[in-house]
Amino acid sequence: MQISPPAALGAALAHVDTPALLIDLDAFERNLQRMAELARAAGVRLRPHAKTHKSPIIAQQQMVRGAVGVCCQKVSEAEVMVAGGIADVLVSNELTGASKLDRLARLARHARIAVCADHPEGVGELEAAARRAGTRLQVLVEVDVGGRRCGMPPGEPAARLAEQIARCAHLDFAGLQAYHGAAQHVRAAEERRQAIAGSIACVRETQRALQALGLEAAIVSGAGTGTFEHEAGSALYNELQPGSYIFMDADYARNRRADGGPFDAFEHALFVYASVMSAPAPGRLILDAGHKAVSVDSGMPLAWKLPGAAYQRPSDEHGILQVSAGVECPARGEKVLLVPGHCDPAVNLHDWYVGVRGLHSADARVECLWPVAARGALF
Amino acid sequence: MQISPPAALGAALAHVDTPALLIDLDAFERNLQRMAELARAAGVRLRPHAKTHKSPIIAQQQMVRGAVGVCCQKVSEAEVMVAGGIADVLVSNELTGASKLDRLARLARHARIAVCADHPEGVGELEAAARRAGTRLQVLVEVDVGGRRCGMPPGEPAARLAEQIARCAHLDFAGLQAYHGAAQHVRAAEERRQAIAGSIACVRETQRALQALGLEAAIVSGAGTGTFEHEAGSALYNELQPGSYIFMDADYARNRRADGGPFDAFEHALFVYASVMSAPAPGRLILDAGHKAVSVDSGMPLAWKLPGAAYQRPSDEHGILQVSAGVECPARGEKVLLVPGHCDPAVNLHDWYVGVRGLHSADARVECLWPVAARGALF
Repeated sequence: MQISPPAALGAALAHVDTPALLIDLDAFERNLQRMAELARAAGVRLRPHAKTHKSPIIAQQQMVRGAVGVCCQKVSEAEVMVAGGIADVLVSNELTGASKLDRLARLARHARIAVCADHPEGVGELEAAARRAGTRLQVLVEVDVGGRRCGMPPGEPAARLAEQIARCAHLDFAGLQAYHGAAQHVRAAEERRQAIAGSIACVRETQRALQALGLEAAIVSGAGTGTFEHEAGSALYNELQPGSYIFMDADYARNRRADGGPFDAFEHALFVYASVMSAPAPGRLILDAGHKAVSVDSGMPLAWKLPGAAYQRPSDEHGILQVSAGVECPARGEKVLLVPGHCDPAVNLHDWYVGVRGLHSADARVECLWPVAARGALF
Repeated sequence: MQISPPAALGAALAHVDTPALLIDLDAFERNLQRMAELARAAGVRLRPHAKTHKSPIIAQQQMVRGAVGVCCQKVSEAEVMVAGGIADVLVSNELTGASKLDRLARLARHARIAVCADHPEGVGELEAAARRAGTRLQVLVEVDVGGRRCGMPPGEPAARLAEQIARCAHLDFAGLQAYHGAAQHVRAAEERRQAIAGSIACVRETQRALQALGLEAAIVSGAGTGTFEHEAGSALYNELQPGSYIFMDADYARNRRADGGPFDAFEHALFVYASVMSAPAPGRLILDAGHKAVSVDSGMPLAWKLPGAAYQRPSDEHGILQVSAGVECPARGEKVLLVPGHCDPAVNLHDWYVGVRGLHSADARVECLWPVAARGALF
C-alpha cells in the first residue's frame, strides 16, 4: 500500500500534516549549484550518491547541473534510478548472490552500469552474470583507503584484481573505488585532511602497481561531503561521490572548518516537520516524531531556531522537546522544524518529500511532492 | 514505487535475497497462542499493538485467537487496519490538527474507533470532528501512570477531563489509557513490578475520582510485553496492549525474570537475513545490512547462533561482524540471521515479511509473503 502524501500541492506550510519530510527548495537548489560549481572548478567529475535521496527526480536535477551519473548502494536502488531516466549508475558496493548479480547484469541492457569488486571470486561471479545476460559491466576495484570496511589492500593486491577483471570477456576494468567513509565525520579539518592524505597515498601506490602490470585506472572515484575538497585537489581522484551536501544534516554541521568555524559550505535543506501533540507539563512538549520519522543513529535531531529546546528520549512515535525554563516555546497543536541528525536514514523512513518554496518565510507553500521512490530498496 | 519481495513463495531459505525481514512462522504462532492463553486465563481483554507489525494479516491472526481489536499509534495506521478488515481500533495516542481529526472521525463510519485525549482543547477538537463527520468516537483519558510522556495527572484532573468527554454529544467516555512505556525495558523483574504497582495506584486514584463524579472507566487499557503480567493481575486493568511479544527482540531478551533468568516467555521470531558481502580481513565480515535494514536505537542486533561474533559499526548499508580469533565464521557469500535490537523500528524499514516454515531446519521454506502494509504510515 502506498501511503498518500501529507500535503496538497500549493498548500500553505501550516496545512502540511505531520510528521512530514520537508525540503527547503531554495536552500536545496543552492546546495546543488554550489557542489556542481566546485566540481567544475576543480576539473573533476561529479557522480553524486543517490543513496541519500533515493529519488530519480532529484538525480535528474543533479544531472542537468553537470553530474555524469549517480552512485547507488543496492541493485534495487539502481533499478529505480534507471527506470527513472538515469542512464549511468555506479553501484559503489560489492554484491553476492546470483539473484542480485543477474539483476545487475540485465540492468546493463538499459544503462551504463558499473560495480565494485574486492575479491577474485566476486570478479568471477560478475563475469558469469554478464555472460548470462549478454551484457558488459564496468568494474571498479574497491581499495581500502583507510575506512577498514570493504576493499582490497592498496598496491599490488588491488592491481592483481584489476588484471583479473581486464582479462574477463564481459567486464571492463574501469578504475578504482577509493572512498574513505570513516573520514567524513571526523570533526577537525586537519584530521580529515590527514585521513584523505592517507587515502591519496593508497591510490598513488595502487596506480603505480597498475602501471607495472600495464594497466591504468581511468576513473578514481571517492569522496563524500566531509572531505571532497581534498580528493578534488589531489590530482589523482577524478570523480566525486558526495551525497549529503544536497540536504546537510546536523551531524555534518558538527564538522569544523580549517579556521575552527562550523562546516557551512552547504545549508540545512531537509527538515522533519512535527507537531506538539501534547504539552503535559511545563517545559515538556511531546512531538509526534520518534524513531519512525527521524533517525537518531548520528545524534538527536536539532530543533530549528528554538534555542533552549532539546529533542530527547525518542520512542517509536514520540519525541520529547525539553525546553529550558523561561524560554518561549511552541504551544500544543503548533508545529516545529527538526534538522535530522543523519539525513540518509531519515529520508529512508518517509514515502514523500514535501518541497516547500520560501520555507522560512511567512508565505511558505508546497511546490512539489516527490516520492522517495527507492525507499525500501534494500537488496 | 512498490519494491518487489526478496523471495519467491516456496523457495528454500538459501534463495531468499538479502537483506530480508524473516518471520519464523513456528515461533511466531506459538507466541500468538501463548499471549492469547495468558490473557484468557487472566480474564482480561487482549488488544495487541499493531504498531509493531503494521500488517492487517497479522492483526487478523491475533483476532481469530481472541483479541478484541488492535491498537494503532497513527490515524494512517488505523486506516490501513480498517481497510484490512479490522473493525475495532484504538488509536492509543493524542492527535492534533484538523486533517488528522477529520480522517479519524470519518474512519468511525467503517469501524469502532477509540482515541486518547489528555487536554480539554483536544476533547473539544475531537467533538467538533465527530460532529462534522456525523460519527461517534470512543475517547479514553490518557493518564500519566509513570512514563512522564503524554497524559493527564492521575486522580481529579483526569476525572475532570472524563467528565468533559461524557458531556460531549458525539463522544463516549470509554475509559483510561494507562500505559507505562518506560517500565517495559527495566531489566530487573522486581523494579518492573514496582513501576507497575505505581501505575496501578494511579489507576485506582483515578477510578475513585471518577466515582466521585458519578463516572466509571469501563475500560482500563495498558501494558506491554515487559510488564503485562502485573497489569493482568491487578484486578483494575482489564485490557492489555502488548505488541512486541509476537516477535520478541534482543532488547526484551535482556530483561530478567523474577528468578534472575532471562525473560523468555516468548521466542525470537523475527530476523533480518543478511549476506556476508565482503570478508576483507581475518575476523572482519562485512554484512549487507546497516541502518536501512535493521534498527540500532535499542542496541546492536545479535548474530543468531554465532557466539564470538558481534555486529558493530553499522553504516547506512553495511554492518561489520567482528569475529573473535579461532571462532568458526561464515564465508563470503554466506548468509546469517540477525535478531533485531528493537523489533518495531526494524519492521518499519522493510516492505515485506518473508514467512519461513521450519526456519532453523534444513528444509526451511518460504510459506508466505506479507506486505508491511502500514510502513510509512506516519501521520
